[in-house]
Amino acid sequence: MGGMTRPHVVEVPLRWSDMDAYGHVNNVQYLRLLEDARVGGLRAWNEGGPSMLEEGIVVTRHTIEYRAPLSYRPDPVAVDMWVTRVHGAGFDLGYVVRDPEAVGEAVYAVAETGLALYDFGTARPRRLGPEARAMLEPHRGEPVPLRWTAR
Amino acid sequence: MGGMTRPHVVEVPLRWSDMDAYGHVNNVQYLRLLEDARVGGLRAWNEGGPSMLEEGIVVTRHTIEYRAPLSYRPDPVAVDMWVTRVHGAGFDLGYVVRDPEAVGEAVYAVAETGLALYDFGTARPRRLGPEARAMLEPHRGEPVPLRWTAR
Amino acid sequence: MGGMTRPHVVEVPLRWSDMDAYGHVNNVQYLRLLEDARVGGLRAWNEGGPSMLEEGIVVTRHTIEYRAPLSYRPDPVAVDMWVTRVHGAGFDLGYVVRDPEAVGEAVYAVAETGLALYDFGTARPRRLGPEARAMLEPHRGEPVPLRWTAR
Amino acid sequence: MGGMTRPHVVEVPLRWSDMDAYGHVNNVQYLRLLEDARVGGLRAWNEGGPSMLEEGIVVTRHTIEYRAPLSYRPDPVAVDMWVTRVHGAGFDLGYVVRDPEAVGEAVYAVAETGLALYDFGTARPRRLGPEARAMLEPHRGEPVPLRWTAR
Repeated sequence: MGGMTRPHVVEVPLRWSDMDAYGHVNNVQYLRLLEDARVGGLRAWNEGGPSMLEEGIVVTRHTIEYRAPLSYRPDPVAVDMWVTRVHGAGFDLGYVVRDPEAVGEAVYAVAETGLALYDFGTARPRRLGPEARAMLEPHRGEPVPLRWTAR
Repeated sequence: MGGMTRPHVVEVPLRWSDMDAYGHVNNVQYLRLLEDARVGGLRAWNEGGPSMLEEGIVVTRHTIEYRAPLSYRPDPVAVDMWVTRVHGAGFDLGYVVRDPEAVGEAVYAVAETGLALYDFGTARPRRLGPEARAMLEPHRGEPVPLRWTAR
Repeated sequence: MGGMTRPHVVEVPLRWSDMDAYGHVNNVQYLRLLEDARVGGLRAWNEGGPSMLEEGIVVTRHTIEYRAPLSYRPDPVAVDMWVTRVHGAGFDLGYVVRDPEAVGEAVYAVAETGLALYDFGTARPRRLGPEARAMLEPHRGEPVPLRWTAR
Repeated sequence: MGGMTRPHVVEVPLRWSDMDAYGHVNNVQYLRLLEDARVGGLRAWNEGGPSMLEEGIVVTRHTIEYRAPLSYRPDPVAVDMWVTRVHGAGFDLGYVVRDPEAVGEAVYAVAETGLALYDFGTARPRRLGPEARAMLEPHRGEPVPLRWTAR
């Protein structure tokens, strides 16, 4: 990811139960880790500002590629998280799930999530206003290095 | 999906706990539903044959697009499942998560999973042999109607 | 459980992901199975009547004893469910988690749950009225055969 | 718990997905939090010693009472964890799930778990040897302040 703005890093603790019968963190649980990275990351980005992002966001899409098996350990994983696209109705986030620097250099997964702003009260989409755009702008980065989408 | 071989259908029951704090089936839990569709579907495809597919398969990739919100209900969802690609080291599955015909016509998600054959004993990839290919062949179908990959 | 009213039986499907890294249905997931037994059982008991039980119930207590290990399988477990106590603010349910008769005779767990009626709107407890009592009465049975509570 | 040895404290982070459709941490997920408290606590107790406790333990029983509703938050919960009983085939743990001191004074649940030593290789129970007893002894405390068992 050379050249991009340094992405935001969220440390996400594992749970023993993230492992499945194969003794690895289950592929579905990686998405659960991304959910908590998103909750923590968007809260941090939004700090002190209007609560435009924290509520009323729905996931429209996920793409995830698995790079290496991961087993439970006391050390958290580090999730790099950045903005890959902003449009009138929402934005996309890219992630790299990896070892924290103090732990190692392994990369476990790369992923992208599409998000749409939503008003749960009226059950209708919302527009992404200038304040939300301003909040996302400093976190923009390069496309997610997915292998599959390149074909 | 006009024109494709009629896909295999697996009915997957919901759990009340699939809902999150928004009162909808959580986006991550859709992948959990796909996992059970895969377990049931591959068992059915493999019936009477060698247990080539049931063990030693790892997920290499998921792509999922959400089409409509889903809430808990006693009725299961129906998951159409078919083969979108076969290669030397594995194969891809496509899915549509929808209402069973007796319940309705809603489509909740479309998705695709990349799978690789794996030998957990030696921790090395395996090749997809002619028997596995023969087993998958009757279930081949069209590409998954994803919106995002079209851009 | 000789002598008691024949308990209500709810069949609850397993998910592959109910297994943990030991390859058994994880002890916590048994409580998840009981949750779905409760959702299904209370709906059945309540059929055609007022929706007194289905909404606004909180769990106040669980006790569960594990009797035998269980692994994932396509066959569901059968959960016997009955009422062990009715009081002014709620009621207790007993359960036996076992094989369906067509599958086997194993007992995997026995458990009891304390439930209290709750008004989520006012965030206050509710009283158990005569209609709810009448609904529960046909399902009363003997105490749960727990070992631990006997000491 | 006046008079008892100061219990070991494990901080356990919440996940957003611990909440259910009522917007509270689901009652089953409390047992999940206790699982992680146990994994962390037993590792700490066992530090530098033989790996007698970390592997080959099965849960035989849980009792939990819920004291107050809990919602997702960035702050972890604190779990007090101590030994309530030691016998030839295992031991019991007591827990209080509460706010960390820096956060508040709420108590969310009290619970007890029965554990038995188990040899997964031979699928047979194991005896609790003198080293394991010595490891547990400093962590012995008073009975869990359960309400239900008092009746």
